[in-house]
Amino acid sequence: MWALINQQFVEDPQALLHVSDLSVQRGYGVFDFFRTAAYIPLFIDQHLDRLENSAAVLGLQLPYNKEELKKILRELISKNNIPDSGIRITLTGGFAADTYTVTTPNIIITQMALSMDPVFDASKGLHLISEEYVRELPMVKSINYLMGVYLQQKVKDAGADDVLYVKNGYISELPRSNVFIVTADNELITAKEHILHGITRKNILIFAKEQMEVKEQPVSLNDVLTAKEIFVSSTTKRLLPVFSVNGIVIADGNPGTVTSNLYQRFLVFEQNNLNAGW
Amino acid sequence: MWALINQQFVEDPQALLHVSDLSVQRGYGVFDFFRTAAYIPLFIDQHLDRLENSAAVLGLQLPYNKEELKKILRELISKNNIPDSGIRITLTGGFAADTYTVTTPNIIITQMALSMDPVFDASKGLHLISEEYVRELPMVKSINYLMGVYLQQKVKDAGADDVLYVKNGYISELPRSNVFIVTADNELITAKEHILHGITRKNILIFAKEQMEVKEQPVSLNDVLTAKEIFVSSTTKRLLPVFSVNGIVIADGNPGTVTSNLYQRFLVFEQNNLNAGW
Repeated sequence: MWALINQQFVEDPQALLHVSDLSVQRGYGVFDFFRTAAYIPLFIDQHLDRLENSAAVLGLQLPYNKEELKKILRELISKNNIPDSGIRITLTGGFAADTYTVTTPNIIITQMALSMDPVFDASKGLHLISEEYVRELPMVKSINYLMGVYLQQKVKDAGADDVLYVKNGYISELPRSNVFIVTADNELITAKEHILHGITRKNILIFAKEQMEVKEQPVSLNDVLTAKEIFVSSTTKRLLPVFSVNGIVIADGNPGTVTSNLYQRFLVFEQNNLNAGW
Repeated sequence: MWALINQQFVEDPQALLHVSDLSVQRGYGVFDFFRTAAYIPLFIDQHLDRLENSAAVLGLQLPYNKEELKKILRELISKNNIPDSGIRITLTGGFAADTYTVTTPNIIITQMALSMDPVFDASKGLHLISEEYVRELPMVKSINYLMGVYLQQKVKDAGADDVLYVKNGYISELPRSNVFIVTADNELITAKEHILHGITRKNILIFAKEQMEVKEQPVSLNDVLTAKEIFVSSTTKRLLPVFSVNGIVIADGNPGTVTSNLYQRFLVFEQNNLNAGW
């Protein structure tokens, strides 16, 4: 497998970074992650726009513009020859002699095999626990997952699959997914603030509006527990139902018709936008 | 300069880590940092104890016990032959194929030249701004400095030197220092919770008790602004006065006699404990 480190394509074992990099020293960096399907990166412009925004907020200078990044991605995809994959672009704070101050960022692009079953499996869903927390600088896709990784043991001990962040009674997101609820009135509601604006979330909002009432507004934990359906969204999950939160089964533990329907719509949306920006 | 990466001593340019390490992927790791004076690591047991504690909280298995670490440190100090230095031990989440789950940690030990002037310079002091924030898992010396590094631009724009974290009206710490205030009644007060328990802080508390009233209790921002003296403590600063917070000059902007006196006491304490644990 080939990777890119700054200006150079290297074989995976040589994808090395000097330990003075601010990611190792201070956990300082941003990234973005997207899938390829049949060699085509999905929603590439949205992902690269978000990467540019994350970098700008953290004061990191991207060494390549979008067109240059696409050129590099074409070469990487060609070299690795994996049709269905995940590609991660990481931009770090750079080598810091003082171990603290941002310098010239390092860019790292890695690819891994990743194929996703398009079939919606109604038997699959998440059991969540909640935790009092909101991500730092949540609008930025930073590499800070201290709490997400730390909480994995607690999730495991609870026999759950993942953790739902709640602050002062209001939910925000999972460490790597957004959350939607479907109310008894068939409204689709998702939090607007204190979250990372996921690309999958954004696209769901686009097409869901055509078929139902959609609201971006604060969502309380109580709203979640009394919802008719809950699902999470992410690049590696598309839409995935939530079966329970803190041991409380949502509705009847059934992913429900709305989630299933939106999932099918997402597949169509994905196909319709396959070549967008590529 | 030599460094240690896991079992191997390497020259600095070869101090490399594969990018699949959880520090690069998710900012997940812990570290500790201490000085050497005339080849002797200062307060080494306290630093290694804290490292062990940080690692345990984050579920990271230290590959070496304290005696083994000391043996490695002796070898590193001998190879580099720098009498006055800073040594950093970093323990990361390890190489994660799934980019998210802790595996076998990587340990990195680096040394850099660092000499500290023992003379207390009354003209030197910090100008701080405050920011609404409290560190995540503050008792752990994690590598998460997302906010600290991010806020550097804001600090610079304000013409300040560093940032004081405040949450709901109560201060905790600076990104890399603890905070003490001296009241009009000559009481020395420092926050006990929501902070990293600094080794310098801990040692100041030990000897300060012999000469004045010392309290570990919540400190409000108002307590700070109306204090007779304020100083910060850290391994690289010992004690350093604070001259202003948010543009408000503390007392008369003079570091004051208590800080100066405690600084002198710290020098003595440092000398008296030079060989402790070594």
